[in-house]
Amino acid sequence: MTPVELIKKKREGSTLNEEELRWLIQGYVAGTIPDYQMSAFLMACFFQGMSEEETLTFTRLMLHSGDVIDLSDIPGIKVDKHSTGGVGDKVSLILAPIVAACGVPVPMISGRGLGHTGGTLDKLESIPGFRTALSIPEYKSVIRKVGAVLIGQTNEIVPADKKMYALRDVTATVECIPLIAGSIMSKKLAEGIDALVLDVKTGRGAFMQSYARSLELAQTLVRIGTGFGKETVAFITDMSQPLGTTIGNWLEVVESVECLKGKRGHDDASSDLMEVTHVLAGAMLMLGKKAKTIAEGVELSRASIANGSAYRKLLELTAAQGGDASALENLERYPLPRHSIEVKTMDTGYVAEIDSLELGLTSITLGAGRGLIEDTIDPKAGIVLSKKVGDSIDAGDTLAVFYTDREAVLEPARDRIRKAFRFQPTPPQQKPIILSYVEKGGVKTWM
Amino acid sequence: MTPVELIKKKREGSTLNEEELRWLIQGYVAGTIPDYQMSAFLMACFFQGMSEEETLTFTRLMLHSGDVIDLSDIPGIKVDKHSTGGVGDKVSLILAPIVAACGVPVPMISGRGLGHTGGTLDKLESIPGFRTALSIPEYKSVIRKVGAVLIGQTNEIVPADKKMYALRDVTATVECIPLIAGSIMSKKLAEGIDALVLDVKTGRGAFMQSYARSLELAQTLVRIGTGFGKETVAFITDMSQPLGTTIGNWLEVVESVECLKGKRGHDDASSDLMEVTHVLAGAMLMLGKKAKTIAEGVELSRASIANGSAYRKLLELTAAQGGDASALENLERYPLPRHSIEVKTMDTGYVAEIDSLELGLTSITLGAGRGLIEDTIDPKAGIVLSKKVGDSIDAGDTLAVFYTDREAVLEPARDRIRKAFRFQPTPPQQKPIILSYVEKGGVKTWM
Repeated sequence: MTPVELIKKKREGSTLNEEELRWLIQGYVAGTIPDYQMSAFLMACFFQGMSEEETLTFTRLMLHSGDVIDLSDIPGIKVDKHSTGGVGDKVSLILAPIVAACGVPVPMISGRGLGHTGGTLDKLESIPGFRTALSIPEYKSVIRKVGAVLIGQTNEIVPADKKMYALRDVTATVECIPLIAGSIMSKKLAEGIDALVLDVKTGRGAFMQSYARSLELAQTLVRIGTGFGKETVAFITDMSQPLGTTIGNWLEVVESVECLKGKRGHDDASSDLMEVTHVLAGAMLMLGKKAKTIAEGVELSRASIANGSAYRKLLELTAAQGGDASALENLERYPLPRHSIEVKTMDTGYVAEIDSLELGLTSITLGAGRGLIEDTIDPKAGIVLSKKVGDSIDAGDTLAVFYTDREAVLEPARDRIRKAFRFQPTPPQQKPIILSYVEKGGVKTWM
Repeated sequence: MTPVELIKKKREGSTLNEEELRWLIQGYVAGTIPDYQMSAFLMACFFQGMSEEETLTFTRLMLHSGDVIDLSDIPGIKVDKHSTGGVGDKVSLILAPIVAACGVPVPMISGRGLGHTGGTLDKLESIPGFRTALSIPEYKSVIRKVGAVLIGQTNEIVPADKKMYALRDVTATVECIPLIAGSIMSKKLAEGIDALVLDVKTGRGAFMQSYARSLELAQTLVRIGTGFGKETVAFITDMSQPLGTTIGNWLEVVESVECLKGKRGHDDASSDLMEVTHVLAGAMLMLGKKAKTIAEGVELSRASIANGSAYRKLLELTAAQGGDASALENLERYPLPRHSIEVKTMDTGYVAEIDSLELGLTSITLGAGRGLIEDTIDPKAGIVLSKKVGDSIDAGDTLAVFYTDREAVLEPARDRIRKAFRFQPTPPQQKPIILSYVEKGGVKTWM
């Protein structure tokens, strides 16, 4: 067996068997198969795809390239959620405390910002002292004590994916469903979960912009999860405009805290965020056997906000991971960015569209994300939307406010944010935020 | 501009413009674009191809990644031949002396064995002392004095191709027509030629196994050559069985010497080799204005064998490049391989097919080629065919004899060589060795 033969085989559209995939993945992790051969293989996968069985085998081999965490000594059905990534997607920060407060343990391994999307780890680390690089024993100790834990990928967990993901990011081989599915599912299966809820984003701000591709990804993910004996369901949710009102790490923590406190998220610009959060929480509580149906789970989720238990769980989780919970209790104490700039419009009418991809990219220029792998993030930087799709606007209205320490980006950022809004004279048709529900048995339109 | 954007652009099937291609090629040569990004780009090219204009631009940028040799101070129309590579293809060793002997200068930059095919440089270097690594001034001096010169690619000539070719070889991105065409033509255009004859191989032992793909390659090559203002014609020739009787470096030198002396190549098993050689020589002499037609050129070519001038030119060329011409005059003095093994058959009937790909691969195991880039070649090793397609066989007949110093390969090699022959009870239909002639104006079946 040589790498060239296997690349050629995939290039010609054949299926690789378990032995071949194992040899390739093990060789890559060991460094005997160099990056330049793996990237050619990955590009061949982009064009030729993988069969169902091949995707399952690929995922299993990725999973077993490292340790699989055993949480069987922790009581309860452990359920996690994974999102394919969006703009302003701070759902995990609100969801994990809710579900843990309702009694279902949430072991969550998250990622950093990628491309135009933000990452849960970067958001959490904007909380002073919050540590996401826990060891496996620390991870187990936090979930045992708090009922939730949010960490980054360790060196022990799926090292093949850690290495391959970095390569895919710089070789334009990200947008390939079997590779995405293998990457996501191997990490989730390594966490020690019993069941999984997936939030597959679709639209302009998602990696899968078309509904058809998002559905294909959702079905692949559900099939793999089920194939590994873990109950897995997925929602396809809209990412054509940012979720909630904030984009940027600390700004998103603030919005999450206010939603957890019940101050926001009812009939306001954060309602879309809380609608997605409650439905995902409802599904997790159903899979965790704390509710019979998703609807019943949603009720429990809402109650955990109303009775303050979800918010208290966030404080508890923050403290357990080394964070300063008082920073969450006193949001106003956080350092202020040097510049806060209002973006106004001269138009009148209604907001028809907000280009979330463009806002995600602009937030990176403000300091909220990384342009290069070695860049550091400014946790204060970001964008707060004053208007969302469907809102009416008058000349002189503020569309958004942005925050940054960077003098040089002020004018281009103002311009890009303004242009990300598209208007029309009449109110646009309301579109659902949750489009479909995918489970082992099939796909349903969500109502 | 980032490498990822350009990879993605090609991946999506777009055409890259000159600025983008220049940035990519220059960055790759300079080392700022790493192998792993280039290999992903090359695989995307494999699937998406290049437009005609893009291929021309790519070739020009490759060409100008290094020096272009100026031979304008050397009298005559300089004409070269390039073959896309085959098994037993020693045409260059016979052709260059013929054409030079007929008064047309032949500046030739050749390659080493690649995949299952042999390389002219490896064959020449089996002659004691023969140097293929000449400097540009030495190259010019030899062609001025002898009328022909055969060297390897120097560091000054198309460095982008030198680096990219090595990468393509190990990433299964060789079989892509625009990449092949850009690689061949950039090197040929850098040699200082005025005109070019191409031998595009087709069939089992060629890189392009189907006639349609071979034709596409031939047309692309002719289009590029013409686009650069060099008269270019191509022949599509059969590589479904090895050319002549020998595979292996010194063995092929011996066959070439015997053909140049006129001892072989008339109505024997080397006839196919000499038919291809004479037609290519005829076309080169026509392009070099020493003959009005290819047929007239073929007559000159035959005459150069008959009158001994072609053979004397080989001795002269060998001496000029540091080789021991007396080794060619006394072929029997060459060291003998440790093992010479006859491969016999128990069948009767006719040889229907000889799998040249399999024989090429087997010859590598004997030591005639490299399994790994760092392997050294055993010049004595190889295979001599006793039977060719159409020959009748009886039980007990010898099909081939193979030569090697390697004890361990004797049994597997015997087995592979025997299995490379396919028999049938009746004589197979005679197939032409030269299939088509491609020039600027179009394609003609060759008769």
